[in-house]
Amino acid sequence: MASRSRLSRRNFLVTSGAGAAALCVSGNAGGYTSAEMRARAADNKLTGVSKWELDTPALCVDLDKLSQNIATMRTRVAAMKVASRPHAKTHKCPTIAKLQLAGGSIGICTAKLSEAEVFAANGIGPILMTTSNVTPNKIRRAMALRKSNPQFVQAVDYAQNARDLNDAAKAAGIVADVVVDVAIGTRSGVPAGDQAVAIAQLVDTLPNLKLRGIISYDGGAQHIKGFKNRLDQTLNRFAPSVETFERFKRGGLNTEIFSGGGTGTYNILPKAPGVTDLQVGSYIFMDCQYLEIGGESNDQVYTDFAPSLTVVTTVLNTYFLKSITTDAGAKALTLNKPGPWVIGEKDFAYNAGSDEFGVIKYETAGRSYKVGDKLELIVPHCDPVVNEYDQMYAIRNDKVEAVWPIAARGHSQ
Amino acid sequence: MASRSRLSRRNFLVTSGAGAAALCVSGNAGGYTSAEMRARAADNKLTGVSKWELDTPALCVDLDKLSQNIATMRTRVAAMKVASRPHAKTHKCPTIAKLQLAGGSIGICTAKLSEAEVFAANGIGPILMTTSNVTPNKIRRAMALRKSNPQFVQAVDYAQNARDLNDAAKAAGIVADVVVDVAIGTRSGVPAGDQAVAIAQLVDTLPNLKLRGIISYDGGAQHIKGFKNRLDQTLNRFAPSVETFERFKRGGLNTEIFSGGGTGTYNILPKAPGVTDLQVGSYIFMDCQYLEIGGESNDQVYTDFAPSLTVVTTVLNTYFLKSITTDAGAKALTLNKPGPWVIGEKDFAYNAGSDEFGVIKYETAGRSYKVGDKLELIVPHCDPVVNEYDQMYAIRNDKVEAVWPIAARGHSQ
Repeated sequence: MASRSRLSRRNFLVTSGAGAAALCVSGNAGGYTSAEMRARAADNKLTGVSKWELDTPALCVDLDKLSQNIATMRTRVAAMKVASRPHAKTHKCPTIAKLQLAGGSIGICTAKLSEAEVFAANGIGPILMTTSNVTPNKIRRAMALRKSNPQFVQAVDYAQNARDLNDAAKAAGIVADVVVDVAIGTRSGVPAGDQAVAIAQLVDTLPNLKLRGIISYDGGAQHIKGFKNRLDQTLNRFAPSVETFERFKRGGLNTEIFSGGGTGTYNILPKAPGVTDLQVGSYIFMDCQYLEIGGESNDQVYTDFAPSLTVVTTVLNTYFLKSITTDAGAKALTLNKPGPWVIGEKDFAYNAGSDEFGVIKYETAGRSYKVGDKLELIVPHCDPVVNEYDQMYAIRNDKVEAVWPIAARGHSQ
Repeated sequence: MASRSRLSRRNFLVTSGAGAAALCVSGNAGGYTSAEMRARAADNKLTGVSKWELDTPALCVDLDKLSQNIATMRTRVAAMKVASRPHAKTHKCPTIAKLQLAGGSIGICTAKLSEAEVFAANGIGPILMTTSNVTPNKIRRAMALRKSNPQFVQAVDYAQNARDLNDAAKAAGIVADVVVDVAIGTRSGVPAGDQAVAIAQLVDTLPNLKLRGIISYDGGAQHIKGFKNRLDQTLNRFAPSVETFERFKRGGLNTEIFSGGGTGTYNILPKAPGVTDLQVGSYIFMDCQYLEIGGESNDQVYTDFAPSLTVVTTVLNTYFLKSITTDAGAKALTLNKPGPWVIGEKDFAYNAGSDEFGVIKYETAGRSYKVGDKLELIVPHCDPVVNEYDQMYAIRNDKVEAVWPIAARGHSQ
């Protein structure tokens, strides 16, 4: 099983991308820093800068692959008669949120209030915040956001919280939109069934809240390996949420939103009755964690979406046998497993466990490497890697077309 | 062994800090955001804001413990007749670098050039960059930094790199200071012995470089558990570096700097002949990883330095049996192991594996918890946690005294 998976990863790494020959570039005419690239972008002087000329580690997103992922999601959700409401915690980038909305998504999700504030400030209207706001100041800010943005919807999962939201909405002079967060597993949300129905009924009686429906996200289902296994477990774990949804309906409670799912279950959750939209996040970038779960059409590598997000790194040391040290460690790639995949090299095991350095161990290499050479990596887990950078470089045919601020980077509050 | 260690951690968690009673606070009069706190700091209106009123997750540093750590290091290194040259990659904060210099340190280290540039721009003179600069643009920038800051010293570990540095120094019209980075293990630096001596001899002949000595850092030694074990392995692994240092001396090469060690080996490395200074980083904050290695006086918990760095988090969910969900996950705490320790609770196992949420599992709790309550955490590994925040709150007696920008946050280039 491990060897089959490895073989498949190996094939993927040498056949995907722009071809192995282009994936390591020696020399470094530019080496443009983050600040230099921002200045060039402001002056419309990006023409001709290659991704191999960026100061490293550099976070890059391939525009053709990004567009392909948006188009694929649009086609697939339309065929399944649902919508996409992408989770912006993945990219934290207003420019990408706008591309997603232009590409047919009905809105975005955010995990944190400080993220929602950034996206709203950058002109994004339809925002569903999937975590409840429980402290007085966050509740007050959420109401201010709702007041200035009628398309802001927030989650609720406690009766007392519903009453607090109602009081704050009244104080703000608004009627605020809420969805009940129905738990799958034991992380967040109210347990499905009686407790969830009771909160919805309470919300329905509160004059300054408007019930919009249900959100129900299963974090544990997204990375179940093997499509059939993931399908069975996801629908099984989602069944109590569907029952709750049906009790809402029978009780005359609003169910216009029934939102859930993620990149691993985007083609599974629509098989459950009533689901309106998918909170897909990682599909826009992909990463090693998702690549290795396998898809419906390929059980070894999940190829429904293209890996658009990469980190370019520089070789710093080749003194040691079967070992290469780079300048991208945990602060550039996180500790998520599996470690980064080196594009173009079948046999490289990249360890990002050191804060400042990456260490590659290998038995065979497609070419020889020397200090200063560049390598391009598929990232372990896209969300927290993006959160380590202030900007990403938008790349087409290896050239930088734009510098995108990651405006909600670090907004974990 | 595991149970002894656990017991000891448990005692530590209830006896350290300000006492368990103060370590969880309900209610939240303020909930001040990052921006609000920056504005209050600018207006000198911080008086009276408690750490429990900060919007969470909030990164806090206790000023008394920070001062205590600086004073302890000063006393200890003086007794061992060496100096400290703290690694600023740990805190990325110019304010703390200034406190370290005021507290007797002879300079700071940085891992990356972009960090060095930030510290220099914030008025820090003596900077030793411990990673070599290998690309043309980084070399050019390093020379510009050296030109404006005569106290900047950089590492070299390849002959070609020495020649490149010399050319760039000549072009900049300066003589640049370098140290030879002698490897311990297989990550960075030139192997000890002939190859290291040859580079030093080459540097000595290059007219625009000035050899200052040796750096030799053993990342693998810092977290060896048990003091005796760590002592033996550290000195054993450091022996080739000492031999190389002695060959430098015999060959008439400058050895005014012989720098190495870290928080785990600060009281070990000075036992090796010739060591001039210690690149200690984490001592300023401490973290769970260091606490559990044990020290010379306490084999279970490393108590030489006080855990000054914490994250305050808010309880979001208590529906589930023996489980508490908080708002601080991997984006606020990283995936480093061991997971965060909850101050005041002996039996809490905190899992920060989810990007946005922390999940605590427990058998017994010192009190009951409800949504909105605050908890304070000792962080798993200080360096990458600090790198996830734009600012830290400087706390004394639970009150915020200052807001410190983490100016080099995200500077992984």
